[in-house]
Amino acid sequence: MNKSPSVITLTTDFGTSDVYVGVMKGVILNINPNVQVVDLTHAIPPHDIHQAALSIYSSYRFFPKDAIHVIVVDPGVGSSRQAIVCQTDNAFFVCPNNGVLSYLLHKTETEDTHIPNAVLIENADYLLPKVSNTFHGRDIFAPIAAHLSLGVPLTDFGTPLQEFVRFSVPLVKRDENTLTGQVIKVDSFGNLITNISEDILTQFLLSDQSNKTTAEKLHKQQDIIHYKITAGSVHLNRLNSSYSESEPGEPLAIISSFGLLEISVNLGNASARYGLKTGDEVRVKRFR
Amino acid sequence: MNKSPSVITLTTDFGTSDVYVGVMKGVILNINPNVQVVDLTHAIPPHDIHQAALSIYSSYRFFPKDAIHVIVVDPGVGSSRQAIVCQTDNAFFVCPNNGVLSYLLHKTETEDTHIPNAVLIENADYLLPKVSNTFHGRDIFAPIAAHLSLGVPLTDFGTPLQEFVRFSVPLVKRDENTLTGQVIKVDSFGNLITNISEDILTQFLLSDQSNKTTAEKLHKQQDIIHYKITAGSVHLNRLNSSYSESEPGEPLAIISSFGLLEISVNLGNASARYGLKTGDEVRVKRFR
Amino acid sequence: MNKSPSVITLTTDFGTSDVYVGVMKGVILNINPNVQVVDLTHAIPPHDIHQAALSIYSSYRFFPKDAIHVIVVDPGVGSSRQAIVCQTDNAFFVCPNNGVLSYLLHKTETEDTHIPNAVLIENADYLLPKVSNTFHGRDIFAPIAAHLSLGVPLTDFGTPLQEFVRFSVPLVKRDENTLTGQVIKVDSFGNLITNISEDILTQFLLSDQSNKTTAEKLHKQQDIIHYKITAGSVHLNRLNSSYSESEPGEPLAIISSFGLLEISVNLGNASARYGLKTGDEVRVKRFR
Repeated sequence: MNKSPSVITLTTDFGTSDVYVGVMKGVILNINPNVQVVDLTHAIPPHDIHQAALSIYSSYRFFPKDAIHVIVVDPGVGSSRQAIVCQTDNAFFVCPNNGVLSYLLHKTETEDTHIPNAVLIENADYLLPKVSNTFHGRDIFAPIAAHLSLGVPLTDFGTPLQEFVRFSVPLVKRDENTLTGQVIKVDSFGNLITNISEDILTQFLLSDQSNKTTAEKLHKQQDIIHYKITAGSVHLNRLNSSYSESEPGEPLAIISSFGLLEISVNLGNASARYGLKTGDEVRVKRFR
Repeated sequence: MNKSPSVITLTTDFGTSDVYVGVMKGVILNINPNVQVVDLTHAIPPHDIHQAALSIYSSYRFFPKDAIHVIVVDPGVGSSRQAIVCQTDNAFFVCPNNGVLSYLLHKTETEDTHIPNAVLIENADYLLPKVSNTFHGRDIFAPIAAHLSLGVPLTDFGTPLQEFVRFSVPLVKRDENTLTGQVIKVDSFGNLITNISEDILTQFLLSDQSNKTTAEKLHKQQDIIHYKITAGSVHLNRLNSSYSESEPGEPLAIISSFGLLEISVNLGNASARYGLKTGDEVRVKRFR
Repeated sequence: MNKSPSVITLTTDFGTSDVYVGVMKGVILNINPNVQVVDLTHAIPPHDIHQAALSIYSSYRFFPKDAIHVIVVDPGVGSSRQAIVCQTDNAFFVCPNNGVLSYLLHKTETEDTHIPNAVLIENADYLLPKVSNTFHGRDIFAPIAAHLSLGVPLTDFGTPLQEFVRFSVPLVKRDENTLTGQVIKVDSFGNLITNISEDILTQFLLSDQSNKTTAEKLHKQQDIIHYKITAGSVHLNRLNSSYSESEPGEPLAIISSFGLLEISVNLGNASARYGLKTGDEVRVKRFR
């Protein structure tokens, strides 16, 4: 039997200038030398649980089924905050119980799928022999992920989790003629990614609640559907199909690759140019 | 039969602070869990096709034969620019048809080797089910590379490419007593790498057209061959064998590890110190 | 027989914006396609042998036994400095003989374990066909590590090393009532890591030379043991068990995850806030 190697992903706020990430990989490979370890990102702003939650939520579905996702953005390391292993229909998550799964949990609820199964990490047999109070990525989360990749069942790690710690996912407000959302992420190109999904946007603009709307439908009706998208000083009255439909240096609205409304500048940096950042309001107003 | 794992390299302008590169790896491992994925660089300046072309050209020969090189520096993503798979004698390239193979194609022509074989990416069976207009690295290039690593033949991906999009590779001008080239790359140490190759430089200075000249030959004749290498305010009259032949902080000329004339400062940063950058002129003048 | 894949780690000052690290991986995989290559860090400050020595010393013990650690911080590349392969009880090191093993050698001496075995890299059969004078990471260290991972014995690479080049490891000074150490590393969170180990600190404060002291013992006696830890303008009179025992923004002292006294700010950056950096003095004064 030639089983495929398991995949473990790492999401941290450790950066890559220190040895911390490399050491976590050493711990993992010492337990399971055949695993594939993938860096998702180590550039989460220090202690930013919200960005970590968004990063893992946007990404995990592109990995192999049963991939193990380790998230170590952990301002409460060494305190009494819990450490958990969580299993969904198609992935595992190993992380502090501090909100880093909030987007994921919001999704499972709104889509009425199974609530994830989770246990506390309690069994010291699966940790490094000496657990520090400052680097649980190395001493707890890495070895647990490695043992999980070897097939250790969830129940061996500890007792069931009673309650997920979560933050409220920022929701889009909708009234008669306006959607109000916000920028939830600025990527390294300076693109402004909002919490207004393709579904919500097109249902609103096409007045179609059928769940079958798409940006493509909207594109076909650009001439008869009138609206304005506003973010700071940027005002747009159409949705692009591609960046290059706009002139270089021009602002534009587009559905991002993760299915969310995005404000960008073709071949430029929208965040720097318009001074917009995470948390800033984005409004879509329709005219009839 | 225990085949060696295939190698897929990634060259992008995505940076490593977002999840984009990690997600591409997820897509690849989901299709072929046994592949080795290697980051070549993700720090190509945004949309800089020229630097991407130079990076992949300098590097691919050091990888295993039949390695698959994915290059996603793609200012035209979502437009009508083509996506291609290209096969040379010893490597595969998966990329937009936008010039990122220009150095490679220039080389195959000047060395009169086989013109690479290439096809358009047309067959949706090998792409992600939903292809966005903004992230073809994830939706097109990653899955194609993964399928290629599983042995899918080129012809399954699409019809033959008619013409490569290319830019003109910056050439060295030569007159009676002067070679005129330019800085084509500044590395992270601040070394100024030029387009003047070891061959061109030593043929010119040794007046030897035999293709058997080397920097070593030149070093042996340092006392009888007189020349001046000029870049901005830097004037040098010899070629170093190693950085440490010069005093710390002193400028020097050397053949770089990729076989090109390089202006450096021993233990220092030549670009910062002399204000020199990509595109700046470098002249070699000989005296007899 | 299905041997586990070997692990090769890379520690360099190359950064990750150039192709240098990727090319080293290409060379390794071309020789041994089944190896796991792990980045320890590529952000050693250029030519900083001291930081490289500290990074590899802190990290190697977390990797699988017999892992091969390549360290390329090499200001003397191309000069007559030697290149070596070094074997300890549980790891291999491939590096220039320039001091990057100083912390490791200091440890083996003070703990009276075996002096590592080392050979010079002399046998050109195991190098790239053409060895440059500027990039031995690619031409010498990467191929040697790859061959080592295939089981080539040390003696095949060259003759025994006569003497390690080393720098003096900064030692902690101790008098009647004061320990004087220094900051030896500032990590990317701005934590100030000192050379005062948990052992030295607790032996001193608990007046216990038994080698059985721990920070935990000290924590239990916080009320009866009186001392002051000083670094620049920071004065602390207790040792935290976790960052979060202090208020956000407050400075604190703690035993770092690598067993060394660390000055930090809870959820903040101690280096930036107090203007402290590598080399700065840290004193522990006890009162009776």
